[in-house]
Amino acid sequence: MAEKITPRGEDYSRWYTDICTKAELADYSPVKGCMVIRPHGYAIWEKIQRGLDRRFKATGHSNAYFPLFIPEEFLQREAQHVEGFAPECAVVTHGGGKKLEHPLVVRPTSETIINYMFSKWVKSYRDLPLLINQWANVVRWEMRTRLFLRTTEFLWQEGHTAHATREEAHEETLKMLDVYADFAENEMAIPVLKGLKTDNEKFAGANRTYCIEAMMQDGKALQAGTSHDLGQNFAKAFDIRFQDEKGEWQHAWQTSWGVSTRLVGALIMGHSDDQGLVLPPKLAPIQVVIVPIWKSDEEVKARLLEAANRIKDDLFEAGIDVHLDDRDKVNPGFKYNEWEMKGVPLRLELGPKDLEKQSAFSARRDVREKEGLPFDGIVEAVKAKLDTIQRSLFDQALARREESSRPIDSYDEFREAIEGGGFFRAHWCGDGDCELKIKEDTKATIRCIELDAPEEKGSCLRCDGSSSRRVVFARAY
Amino acid sequence: MAEKITPRGEDYSRWYTDICTKAELADYSPVKGCMVIRPHGYAIWEKIQRGLDRRFKATGHSNAYFPLFIPEEFLQREAQHVEGFAPECAVVTHGGGKKLEHPLVVRPTSETIINYMFSKWVKSYRDLPLLINQWANVVRWEMRTRLFLRTTEFLWQEGHTAHATREEAHEETLKMLDVYADFAENEMAIPVLKGLKTDNEKFAGANRTYCIEAMMQDGKALQAGTSHDLGQNFAKAFDIRFQDEKGEWQHAWQTSWGVSTRLVGALIMGHSDDQGLVLPPKLAPIQVVIVPIWKSDEEVKARLLEAANRIKDDLFEAGIDVHLDDRDKVNPGFKYNEWEMKGVPLRLELGPKDLEKQSAFSARRDVREKEGLPFDGIVEAVKAKLDTIQRSLFDQALARREESSRPIDSYDEFREAIEGGGFFRAHWCGDGDCELKIKEDTKATIRCIELDAPEEKGSCLRCDGSSSRRVVFARAY
Repeated sequence: MAEKITPRGEDYSRWYTDICTKAELADYSPVKGCMVIRPHGYAIWEKIQRGLDRRFKATGHSNAYFPLFIPEEFLQREAQHVEGFAPECAVVTHGGGKKLEHPLVVRPTSETIINYMFSKWVKSYRDLPLLINQWANVVRWEMRTRLFLRTTEFLWQEGHTAHATREEAHEETLKMLDVYADFAENEMAIPVLKGLKTDNEKFAGANRTYCIEAMMQDGKALQAGTSHDLGQNFAKAFDIRFQDEKGEWQHAWQTSWGVSTRLVGALIMGHSDDQGLVLPPKLAPIQVVIVPIWKSDEEVKARLLEAANRIKDDLFEAGIDVHLDDRDKVNPGFKYNEWEMKGVPLRLELGPKDLEKQSAFSARRDVREKEGLPFDGIVEAVKAKLDTIQRSLFDQALARREESSRPIDSYDEFREAIEGGGFFRAHWCGDGDCELKIKEDTKATIRCIELDAPEEKGSCLRCDGSSSRRVVFARAY
Repeated sequence: MAEKITPRGEDYSRWYTDICTKAELADYSPVKGCMVIRPHGYAIWEKIQRGLDRRFKATGHSNAYFPLFIPEEFLQREAQHVEGFAPECAVVTHGGGKKLEHPLVVRPTSETIINYMFSKWVKSYRDLPLLINQWANVVRWEMRTRLFLRTTEFLWQEGHTAHATREEAHEETLKMLDVYADFAENEMAIPVLKGLKTDNEKFAGANRTYCIEAMMQDGKALQAGTSHDLGQNFAKAFDIRFQDEKGEWQHAWQTSWGVSTRLVGALIMGHSDDQGLVLPPKLAPIQVVIVPIWKSDEEVKARLLEAANRIKDDLFEAGIDVHLDDRDKVNPGFKYNEWEMKGVPLRLELGPKDLEKQSAFSARRDVREKEGLPFDGIVEAVKAKLDTIQRSLFDQALARREESSRPIDSYDEFREAIEGGGFFRAHWCGDGDCELKIKEDTKATIRCIELDAPEEKGSCLRCDGSSSRRVVFARAY
C-alpha cells in the first residue's frame, strides 16, 4: 500500500494506472479487455449510482431490467445502429450444449430489445410518457482498453423513454443532460461543457446526441455522459405506435441517455495527485478517517480509543461515512499514507496531547492544511471542512480548465498547441470531411458545439469556409 | 389492469403467471428463456437488495464486480464444477467480428473467475478473511422456464469468501445461512426451514450446501437461498495460498452463497390471493396508497386534495413509501382494484364525510378489515397497521406450512399424500440411489436435513435401511 506511484509529470498514463491499482480501485482480469472493480472502486460506483438514481427517480423515471441477450436480427432493424455497433459485438452461438439456430448478441446498448418491449406496452397516448432506466452491464469489443475508461465490459445506466410529441422528447433529452451536468458539477466536483455532438460523433441511430465534456488534468477531454434525441427512428424500426387523443395512430418520439463506470476514471483523473487518489467528499466511500496515536501505554490507548469512538459515533450519527483505524500492527505514518493513497478527504489525528486539549488535529487530503478541531462542536466543524473541500476541488478543476481553454484561429498554431492539451474554441465550416481531416492531422476531435456558444461570424480553422459559431476541439479519452 | 386473474383453485400455475403479468411485475421477452422485469417487479427487487445488502455490510462484506465472461478452461479446473455447469452454459465464440481463439462462457456462477483473482490478492494470513459480494446477472441455459422462478438469465448476489481455517469458513457458511433466514422471515414474512442438502442436491464443487426452504401455497417447496462450504476445492484448483503466522504455506478455506430474483417469485407465491399480489409492507414499493373520493364539486376536491397531500407528506416524512392517487380520469373503484392487484398493503380512502370527521378510512390488503383512522395520530396508526400486516402475513404463512407438514412412515401413504403437496418428515437410509428412486417414483426430493432435526432411530421410508433422523421430502419448484 505504501508503495510510491509514478508522478504525473513523469508519465501521466502510468500515474493513472498506478492509482487504479495501488489505491485498490481495480485490477486486470484474465479475460481480455475486462476489468475487476475492487471493493474501494465499487464503493465509489455505488455512491455514483445513488446520486444518479435519486435524480432519475425525482424526474419521474422507474428502473426495470431487460435481457442481456439480443437477437442478432434486432440490431439490423435500424440501419445506422447496426453499422455502429455490429463490429463491436460479442456473439453467443452455443447454449445448453447446442449450436443456436439464431445467434444472440450480448447487449452493447439496449435500444433494440427495450423498444421491442415498448411496442407491446404502448398503445394509447395514456401510456405515454414511458420513462424507464436500467442499471446493467454492457459489452463492446475493444482493442485498446484502459481501466475504467475503456473496457470491453462495463457497468452503466441507460435511460429509455417514449413520448407523444417531438417537443416533449427533445425536452427530455435536454433535461437528462442537465441532470448529468448537475451531478458532475455538484457531486463529482468536475465542471463540464454541455453541447451537441457533430454528426460524425453522434450515437448510431440518434438524430442528435448531446453530451457533457470534462477536462482531465493532462488537458484531454473526457466525454462523461450522453443524451440522445432518437426522433422516431427506433419507433419506426420496432413499430411503437399509439392512438392520440383524436384516435389517430402515431409513432412515438424517443430518447436514450447513459453514463458508465468511466465516471470513476473521470473522478480519478480529475482530482488526484502524486500521493494518490483525491476524492470529492460527496462520493468518497470513507469521508473521514480517525487515526489515534499511542505508544505502549495501555491506559493511554484505552482513553484515546474511547474518545475516538465517541467522535466516530457522533460523526456517524450525523450521516458522515467515518472509519476509525485502530489497527495495532501498523504505525500512524503507514496509516496516513494508506488513507492518502485511497483518497479519504479528511483525516483526524488524535494523540495524548490532543486528548489533554480536548481537540483533534485535522488534515485535509486535497491541500496541505492542518488545523486543531475542539471536540466541542467537532461534528459541525468536520461538516464545514468537507463542504470546503468539495467546493475547493470544483474551483480548482474549473480554474485548471479555464487556464487550458482558449479561442484559436490559426491552424498552424492549433497543430502545435494541441500537443500540450487543452480545449480550443475554433470556427468550423460544418463539413464532416473537414472535421475528419483535422482529426487525421491532429488527433483532435470536435468535442461539442456548446449549447451556450454565442453567434460569431468567422472562417473555418482548416478550410476557411464560413462559420457562425465556434466549436470546441480537443484530444479525448 | 382491472382484468380478473385465474383463481388459485382453478389453475395454480396460471394464477401465478396472471399475477406476474397483470400486476405488471414481469413480461415475456423475445429471447428464449429470458424475462423482462417491469418497474413494479424491479422495485420489489430493489427493496430486497437493500435489505440484504445492509445485512451483508453489517457482517463485514464488501461489494465488488468481476467479469461477465469466464475462460472456458477455468470451469474445467474443478471437476465437479464443470460437470454441473458446462451443460447449462452460453458460449461466446465471436467478438469484434472475429472468431475467438478461446471461447468464453457467460458466467453461470463466478467461483472460478473470482477465485482466480483471490489467488492474486491473498498472500498472507493478514489478507484473510477476504469477504466479497457481487450483485450481478448470470446465465444458465434452461429448457423449461417460469417467470422469476426459473429463467435463463437472472439477477442475483453471490458472496465469495476466503478464510485461514476450516472452522472459520464453516462458521461463515452458517452465518450467511442465518442472514438469509432472518431476511426471509423478518422482511419477506416467509418462514423457512434451515438445513443441509444431500450430496445429490448440493452445489457442484461444494463440500456441503446449506439451504433455506420455503413452502408455497400449493404445498410445494421453493429453495430460497443456499450457502456453500467449499472446503479447499477451489483454493486448490486456483492455487489460493497464504503464509500462516508460522510462515508456512496453506490453502485457503472458502465459502460461497447466493439468492436471486427467484425471491420475487417466492413473495408472489407465498402471500398472494385471487385478487392479485399481496406484499409484506417491508418489501412493498408502495406501502400506503391514498385515494381521495370526490364528485364534481371543485371546491370539495381542492379541500380533499389538500388534506390528502398533508397526510402524504406526514407519512413520507416518517419514512413510509406513500402514493397519492389523484388521477382525474378513473373512478375510485378502478383505483381500488388496481392497487389491490399491485399488492399495496394499506389503502386510505378520503371522502367529504371523512374530511368532516377529520378521519380517513383504512382498508388492509391482506384481510377484509376496514377502520377509520383520525387525522390526529394517523402516522402512528398507519405504522401500527403496517406492523400488524407484516406479522400477520408471517403468521398465516407459518400456519399454512404447519398444517401441511407432517411425519410419515409408510411409503404407500407417502406416494398418495405427496400428490396434495406438503412437507413430509420421513426416515431415509442416507443412500443417494435410494433418494433418486424415491424421486423417480414420486417427483419428491429431499429438500434438506434440518439443522435442528432431533435424533430419532427409524427405518428408511423406501428401503427400510436404518436411519438416525428424519429428513424433509417435498416436491419443489
